[in-house]
Amino acid sequence: MFERLAVIGVGLIGGSAARSARASGVCTEIVGYDTDAGNLRAALDLGVLDGSGADIAGTVEGADLVLIATPVGAMQSVLASLKGCWNPQTAYTDAGSTKHSVVEMVRQVFGQMPGNFIPGHPIAGAEASGVAAARPDLYRNCRVILTPVAETDPAKLSRVRDFWQALGARVEELEPLHHDRVLAATSHLPHVIAFALVDLLGRRDETEEIFRYAASGFRDFTRIASSDPVMWRDICAANRAEIHMVLCQFVNELQQIATLLDQDRSDLLLELYARAKEARQRFLKLAEG
Amino acid sequence: MFERLAVIGVGLIGGSAARSARASGVCTEIVGYDTDAGNLRAALDLGVLDGSGADIAGTVEGADLVLIATPVGAMQSVLASLKGCWNPQTAYTDAGSTKHSVVEMVRQVFGQMPGNFIPGHPIAGAEASGVAAARPDLYRNCRVILTPVAETDPAKLSRVRDFWQALGARVEELEPLHHDRVLAATSHLPHVIAFALVDLLGRRDETEEIFRYAASGFRDFTRIASSDPVMWRDICAANRAEIHMVLCQFVNELQQIATLLDQDRSDLLLELYARAKEARQRFLKLAEG
Repeated sequence: MFERLAVIGVGLIGGSAARSARASGVCTEIVGYDTDAGNLRAALDLGVLDGSGADIAGTVEGADLVLIATPVGAMQSVLASLKGCWNPQTAYTDAGSTKHSVVEMVRQVFGQMPGNFIPGHPIAGAEASGVAAARPDLYRNCRVILTPVAETDPAKLSRVRDFWQALGARVEELEPLHHDRVLAATSHLPHVIAFALVDLLGRRDETEEIFRYAASGFRDFTRIASSDPVMWRDICAANRAEIHMVLCQFVNELQQIATLLDQDRSDLLLELYARAKEARQRFLKLAEG
Repeated sequence: MFERLAVIGVGLIGGSAARSARASGVCTEIVGYDTDAGNLRAALDLGVLDGSGADIAGTVEGADLVLIATPVGAMQSVLASLKGCWNPQTAYTDAGSTKHSVVEMVRQVFGQMPGNFIPGHPIAGAEASGVAAARPDLYRNCRVILTPVAETDPAKLSRVRDFWQALGARVEELEPLHHDRVLAATSHLPHVIAFALVDLLGRRDETEEIFRYAASGFRDFTRIASSDPVMWRDICAANRAEIHMVLCQFVNELQQIATLLDQDRSDLLLELYARAKEARQRFLKLAEG
C-alpha cells in the first residue's frame, strides 16, 4: 500500500511502527533516521530498517509516507529539515504526545499548515525507550488519535488512517486542543503525580526503609515514574496550560480529602472511595470496548 | 509445627494464609470463621478450611495459632469475642494494615497487652477480595512486619515468625508507630491518590472520552482504585494522623510543580523528573533485594 516509509526517530514508538509495518506488509521498504548514531546503527543491525540516509533530507527522499516519531522537543528542528525537501505527494504524520503545540509549530515553520501533514498520536508507550524496546505488536488494538485541521487534505488523512489500521490500531479523530485536554487528564497528570510521589518519598530520611516495605501496588503505581524525564519535560512544556489546570483541580480534590481526614469524616471518605471504584470499573469496560 | 491454625476472616489475606499453610505443611489442621456465611461456605467447599465452629469461640477452641485476618474495622468485635476464651498457651496474631491502632484496641479490650498477641502485617494484597481470590503463593518473598511491644512474649513472637517464614515470607520487626508512618507513605497515600484521581476524572463532563483514550499506564496507575472502599475507609480512620501528614506534604509537592509549570521552569521540572526516575530505580533494587 506504501512504497517507502521513512521513520524519523527510531525509538520505541518509531521502531515499533517500523517493525509492525514490516510484519503487516503495508510497506515495501522502510528507511529511517535518528540523531542517536548508536540507536540508528542498532535499528539497521536489527533489521528494523532497510536503510538510512546521511541526514533527514537524504532519508525521506522517495518516501510516500513520513512518520516523525521524535520527542516533541525535537520536532521543530525536524520540521525545519523537512521544509527544504517537502514533497506535496507525500503524506506526513507525527506521533507527538501533544497536538496543539505541534500544529502551531508546523504553522510557524511553514508559514501555513500544509494539507499533507496529518497530526497524530498513537496512545501507546512504555517506560522503556530505544529501538531495542520496539515491538511489532505495540499498536494492536491501541488507539491512534488523528487531529486534522481545516487545511487537512482528506485523501492524505485517509492514507495515514489506513496505515495505522494496517498496524492493528483503532483510529479516531479529535480537535487538537480537545486531544490535549483529554490527554492532560489521562496521561500527563498521572505522570506528574507519579514523578512527584517518588521524588517526595525519595527525599525523605527514611527513604530506604520506605522503599523496602513497598509492595506490588506501589510498583505498579509508580511504573510511569521510570519514564524518560526529557520526554516529560517536553510534554509538560508543550501542554503547560492544560496540565496546570487539571493539576490544580487534582490538588483541590486532595485538599478536600485532607479536610475529611482531619475532620474524621469516614462516611464521606467511603462515599468518595466507592464512587472512585465504580468509575474505575467504567474505565475498564471502556478500555475493553 | 502447629497442630491447629484458626483463621478469623477468610478473605484474600486469611484465605491465602490458609492455602499457603496447607501447601507448606506447617499446620496439621486448619479451621476458620467468617461473618460472611457465603464466603465461609466457599472456603469449606474449596477445601481451604477443614472445618469451622458456630462462632469465633467455637472455632478457635484447641488452636495453637490464631490469625485475625479481618479488615481493621472489624477487629474490635473479633477481639471482644476472643477475650472470653483467651488461651495463654496459644499464639495470636493479626494481619491488619495499621498497627498502632490495633495495639491500642487490644489494650482497650483486654485492659492490658497480652504477651501472646503478636501484632503483624503481611505486606501483600491485591484489589481482589474474598476466599475465591486466595492464592497459595501470595506470601512467597513477601515482607511480613511484626510489631512487638514491651509486653510481647519472645517465645510467641518466635512462633509467629516461624509461621510466616514457613509460608515463604521475609519477616522483619518495626515499632507499631514507625510501621504506620512507613505504610502511610508507601501504601496508604498511593491508594488515596488513586481513589482521588479516578473520582476526579469520573465526575467530569467528558469522563467517557477521558477513559476511552486512557492507555495501559493509566490502567496500572489506577489499579489500586479498584480496592475495597470499606477496607480503605477503615485504614484511613485507623491511621488518620500519619496519612494526613504525608498527604499534606504531597499536596505541597504538587503545588510546587504547579508553580514550575506556571512559570515555565522546564529546567527545574527536568531535575525533579530525573531525580524521581533515579529514586524509582533505587526502589526497584531494594524491592528485589
